[in-house]
Amino acid sequence: MTESMSLVEAFKQTQYQIAGNGRRNIQILKEAFEHIDDQQDSDMYGNGEIIEMFQKKMATYLGKESAVFFPSGTMAQQVALRIWCDEKGIKRVAYHPLSHLEIHEADGLKEMHHIDTLLLGDESGLMELEDVLNLDQEIACLLLELPQREIGGQLPDYQTIVEISEYCQAKGIRLHLDGARLFEILPYYQKSAAEVCGLFDSVYISFYKGIGGIAGAILAGNQEFTQQSKVWKRRHGGDLISLYPYIISANHYFDQRISKMEQYYENAKELARLFNSCPFIQTKPAVPQSNMFHVHITRSKEQVEAIFKEVYYETGIGLTSYLREENQSSVSFEVSVGDQYNSIPKDKVQKAFQSLQVKLTE
Amino acid sequence: MTESMSLVEAFKQTQYQIAGNGRRNIQILKEAFEHIDDQQDSDMYGNGEIIEMFQKKMATYLGKESAVFFPSGTMAQQVALRIWCDEKGIKRVAYHPLSHLEIHEADGLKEMHHIDTLLLGDESGLMELEDVLNLDQEIACLLLELPQREIGGQLPDYQTIVEISEYCQAKGIRLHLDGARLFEILPYYQKSAAEVCGLFDSVYISFYKGIGGIAGAILAGNQEFTQQSKVWKRRHGGDLISLYPYIISANHYFDQRISKMEQYYENAKELARLFNSCPFIQTKPAVPQSNMFHVHITRSKEQVEAIFKEVYYETGIGLTSYLREENQSSVSFEVSVGDQYNSIPKDKVQKAFQSLQVKLTE
Repeated sequence: MTESMSLVEAFKQTQYQIAGNGRRNIQILKEAFEHIDDQQDSDMYGNGEIIEMFQKKMATYLGKESAVFFPSGTMAQQVALRIWCDEKGIKRVAYHPLSHLEIHEADGLKEMHHIDTLLLGDESGLMELEDVLNLDQEIACLLLELPQREIGGQLPDYQTIVEISEYCQAKGIRLHLDGARLFEILPYYQKSAAEVCGLFDSVYISFYKGIGGIAGAILAGNQEFTQQSKVWKRRHGGDLISLYPYIISANHYFDQRISKMEQYYENAKELARLFNSCPFIQTKPAVPQSNMFHVHITRSKEQVEAIFKEVYYETGIGLTSYLREENQSSVSFEVSVGDQYNSIPKDKVQKAFQSLQVKLTE
Repeated sequence: MTESMSLVEAFKQTQYQIAGNGRRNIQILKEAFEHIDDQQDSDMYGNGEIIEMFQKKMATYLGKESAVFFPSGTMAQQVALRIWCDEKGIKRVAYHPLSHLEIHEADGLKEMHHIDTLLLGDESGLMELEDVLNLDQEIACLLLELPQREIGGQLPDYQTIVEISEYCQAKGIRLHLDGARLFEILPYYQKSAAEVCGLFDSVYISFYKGIGGIAGAILAGNQEFTQQSKVWKRRHGGDLISLYPYIISANHYFDQRISKMEQYYENAKELARLFNSCPFIQTKPAVPQSNMFHVHITRSKEQVEAIFKEVYYETGIGLTSYLREENQSSVSFEVSVGDQYNSIPKDKVQKAFQSLQVKLTE
């Protein structure tokens, strides 16, 4: 019965899903706007109460002088790197080989801003302090992604960030934080957002990862930097007449979920333990450092798909909607914990993983 | 009593306003989403039913092979020009000196795409066929804005567009339409959108001018062009995970207003006659060619502001929220007719203009 169904179809039919905040449907927007006054005026090209209040709120939260709302992180980060390159007159920046800018932006930074990139560190691990110390070309800016998403959301220890920050400051290198998942790492470091951001010249944060908004980003830094970023936002075509659909939802879900990041983190650790209790499964990292981790299974895609579909059908619990084929005998997928995990009865979770253990052993 | 009030404050207190579709408030979004199923899934990075259906609908309406939804026209048009420049290997385009790209985009085309621009025609009038024939440098693309917004929404006669189109095709110059207000000019030409767009290689249209949506644009052309435009949309940071807040509202207000463009056009002509019946007032153009025109008054800003505030207060009719100072004895403002004009009782409109006539004569 389940054989003919694809994994994503089987996943959609499950009663519970272990990851995320739920389906990205229209209800997300409707809920955010439910209690907003119909007569409230739109923002207008970056001005107006809605956008200015949210920017101020985020600047305060991040401990930065000023903040600007952007439609996307792709835009916000290219703008940040361009500003720092122009400031220094050096068209070169450095980041991890699996940075979002390197693998998900169709080379926008190079094609539009003509900025060269140095890739620091190894694809399979974190950027280390030595990688920074051993830089052999001048750069205007170093971008640090916390957590490093493509390797399961790993984090350096806090002292390493401090040392990188001090080194960059001493060398006149601007340090930019790709904080797409900044909220999600604060429980691990036991630091405030402002403490972490204090180590960086500029910071980008996103509102549709852990926060579960619709889209949108904040870029924060000092006044001069954010003023310039508004000009670049216009150049990129991001200075929309109205950004309020994203701002109001970002604000709504920020207020709703910012205090839940500790819970997501604890649940991620619990879930990773359950995965690691299964044969042929290892999570990366072994112990999550945020709300996310990657699951690696040393079985063929065909085998895992068949087993997962059976588990979904028998237990009503969806583990993932997709599998990434690493090679002929290995697959992986990403888990980012949100609201959904806590709504699953504990005995059902146990049953799903017992079933998975048995099926992988057979 | 009205003296201490600013013009914009006085305008906001009027019962009726002659221009536009009403205030840009949250209600605009709520109305568009009222009958949308909560369970409908978001678009995802340019894919999914919501975005694909709307793109197909607009491609059909414009008579083009394919269409792509963009968050903004600024982004869509830079992308179009970049694609045509790359195709031809010539980094130069031509447009009117008051093109949106020249005066409202902080030089994005130059700063990000390194594209040079030739300005064709005079600031005070339309680009003429001769301007195109006399081009003395090679260009990859010519951008034509219909109507030419910054000179009151003037239009060339249709035959001129046909001849420019034929010339460009013969010379291998791509012709791009800045159709931010394309819907609004169809009654003047008595042509379909597809007929007009048939003269162009690529077309941009906007959804928050006459249509009255929240934001967003469509870029249309052949398959190869639109495929490339998706890559550039990602590079610009415009390939958002969810664009549905703009798409659903664009679709809603398109359906609601596309058949009203004739009415807006007729009302614009009526309104321009009323303005022109007043001393010291001339509209540009004298007879509107779309739903828009500019009002020029040869009186000082101080004088006009005082008179307008009195008219607003006495008649409850708002004529404009702002005055642009052309020089010490001349001001101007823009009128774009939408839904609001028809909701004003005719005798009240008459009274407002009678009052304006008297006060300007005094």
